[in-house]
Amino acid sequence: MNLKKSLVAVTLLFSALILASCGNSSNTSSSSNSKNGTSTSSTKSGSYQVTGQTNSSQYAGVIKNGKYLTSKSRGVTVSQSSGNLMNLKSFEAGLQDISKNEFSTSKYIFQEGQYLSSDTVKNWLGRKSKSNADGLNPASNGSTTPTGRNPIYLQSMEEQDYVQKSGSKLKLSGITIGLAMNSVDYYRKTTYGAEYQTNISDATLEKEGKAMAKEVLARLRKKKGLENIPIVIAVYKQASNDSLVGGNFVSYSINKGNSIEKWKALDIKNVVFPLKSDESAPNSNDSDAFSNFKSEVENFFPNLSGVTAQAQYKNGSLQGMNVSVTTQFYSETEINSFTQFLADQAEKYLPSGVKIDITVSSTTDGVQSFLSRSSTAKSFSTHVFESY
Amino acid sequence: MNLKKSLVAVTLLFSALILASCGNSSNTSSSSNSKNGTSTSSTKSGSYQVTGQTNSSQYAGVIKNGKYLTSKSRGVTVSQSSGNLMNLKSFEAGLQDISKNEFSTSKYIFQEGQYLSSDTVKNWLGRKSKSNADGLNPASNGSTTPTGRNPIYLQSMEEQDYVQKSGSKLKLSGITIGLAMNSVDYYRKTTYGAEYQTNISDATLEKEGKAMAKEVLARLRKKKGLENIPIVIAVYKQASNDSLVGGNFVSYSINKGNSIEKWKALDIKNVVFPLKSDESAPNSNDSDAFSNFKSEVENFFPNLSGVTAQAQYKNGSLQGMNVSVTTQFYSETEINSFTQFLADQAEKYLPSGVKIDITVSSTTDGVQSFLSRSSTAKSFSTHVFESY
Repeated sequence: MNLKKSLVAVTLLFSALILASCGNSSNTSSSSNSKNGTSTSSTKSGSYQVTGQTNSSQYAGVIKNGKYLTSKSRGVTVSQSSGNLMNLKSFEAGLQDISKNEFSTSKYIFQEGQYLSSDTVKNWLGRKSKSNADGLNPASNGSTTPTGRNPIYLQSMEEQDYVQKSGSKLKLSGITIGLAMNSVDYYRKTTYGAEYQTNISDATLEKEGKAMAKEVLARLRKKKGLENIPIVIAVYKQASNDSLVGGNFVSYSINKGNSIEKWKALDIKNVVFPLKSDESAPNSNDSDAFSNFKSEVENFFPNLSGVTAQAQYKNGSLQGMNVSVTTQFYSETEINSFTQFLADQAEKYLPSGVKIDITVSSTTDGVQSFLSRSSTAKSFSTHVFESY
Repeated sequence: MNLKKSLVAVTLLFSALILASCGNSSNTSSSSNSKNGTSTSSTKSGSYQVTGQTNSSQYAGVIKNGKYLTSKSRGVTVSQSSGNLMNLKSFEAGLQDISKNEFSTSKYIFQEGQYLSSDTVKNWLGRKSKSNADGLNPASNGSTTPTGRNPIYLQSMEEQDYVQKSGSKLKLSGITIGLAMNSVDYYRKTTYGAEYQTNISDATLEKEGKAMAKEVLARLRKKKGLENIPIVIAVYKQASNDSLVGGNFVSYSINKGNSIEKWKALDIKNVVFPLKSDESAPNSNDSDAFSNFKSEVENFFPNLSGVTAQAQYKNGSLQGMNVSVTTQFYSETEINSFTQFLADQAEKYLPSGVKIDITVSSTTDGVQSFLSRSSTAKSFSTHVFESY
């Protein structure tokens, strides 16, 4: 449960306060926790609340005894994905997006995964071996050459629970599992030796992911409480470690029964602007628009360091852009003027009708300002980070 | 002018584009720049535009030949204030706030200082000496003891110009000068020697600042173009280097003639929450409110690193808060839930009717999310920084 014993006393002190503090909370059944200050509360009789929803496209999250209910496998995913943190962000956010197809944010509450423990996930992510019969990755074939060896296909996995209010309790109503598959498996022959890589084709990645999904579904159905709920399983392709954008989901299935029912293919592509010379964007208008924007912006100040963007396409059409502007140190008045200038130029040049975020960071002083426009808004809202 | 020669060719290429690109620009008189690619454009005949105003409480800024018109003393202020960057932000933003009393954002355009060059500012900030008759700081008296020496009173200064449209040109309509005075003068007896400090009382700081203001006004009045315009001079008290919040303005005067007309005292106080044991806030309700908020927030997650806030008071009443929440690494779903939780708790606990910003940063991964509420809004708007 990740409750540090030393915090329990504090927890108990403040739990009454917290129970009274959540506007959206209808699950504030009185707590039956042990009050001796040493035992952590039991799952069965704990008191639940939910966070507010700051907007209706976000899930409310589960608070238990005043603390956020963290994942039972917290940390495993992170350490597995540390090669490229953008994979982790894109994997988790993308998995929630897929979940929204089946579990609407108005009816379901998000709960960090409670059914797969760290140990379970670690075993599943390992190679199959005598000591690890549960390993989803193939047994070693003895080879250590990039093309001869059996690669690690499954790099990371995540469980997301979707729960609903039921009287004074929260009832599990669905689970989503994401399988993050390597497009490149990085490995070393000795602990501190050189890094080698085995490339994995899209076809192989998808085939292996779907096979693992079948096995994962079968295992989950055997767990108490998971026999009959909908289980969504999604296969994600991790970006390589040198990518400036995360990977993307390739396929998912919604399963009510014991075997995978049907895979739905996803056509999602992430690109980084400016494009490299050998790359192309699904829509060249977007890369031209970005180039024009970049030129205007780079020309504005003597010492601008860089303007790049992540863009995501779904079925060939642009979904949104995250623009990063990196600057030298600018004074407060310069940042103010620059931010207003960016709003003008972004409105003029960047594609309309999609969500656009622009973050201005200084190389020495972190995030300086920030602009954002939703897909339906016309103009950007801006914020300059200030200090008294 | 700060135009790098190597950029001039690029500037000329893009200037036509830029001239067409600024919606708010009514000053796009055609440029009479030399087109030989080597000369920088002259001040007299350059083509001006202005940035848009993203909100009416902000000044539009001046763009010249497609580039932001940077200050003629750019960089001097920064290097002088490097002891505590928060002083610089608060000094510049505070100086604009004072300017707004005299030069409204609807009628005036902000221009970075164009009348005091780097050399001039450097000389004025120096000690008076045989080789620097213009030094505003007192001549050395030979002593190097903290209490015996003549301290450096004036640490930094800034010129801000306020201009108005006049036909196809921008006409200077007012100047604001900020004098940033040391509350502590840090010095070394030898270049890499130990750092000593001379403390300067509030009364001395104000007296010295006002005397310098008199001299600065007299000097400015002798400059061509500055004979008759309103000149605002404001005295700022720098915070010490170990302060977690910047300093504050103590007094300012608006001058139409040749001598200082009248000083208006400012009652501004910055505090950092949580208060140290020997400190008090102008309103103890605010520090209690912050403590309650902090307790709730720190209890939510197992590994929260810290919750602090800057608060500013004017005439004893709270003007706003900048709250910083520092976290360990959180996953994307955790940041989403945490941000929603923060919105609830901030609305519940933090003082209403004032501007509040909350920034969530991870120690390893920079700014994660951000919440903001204007003084008139009821609920917080939130933004989680995402990555595709």
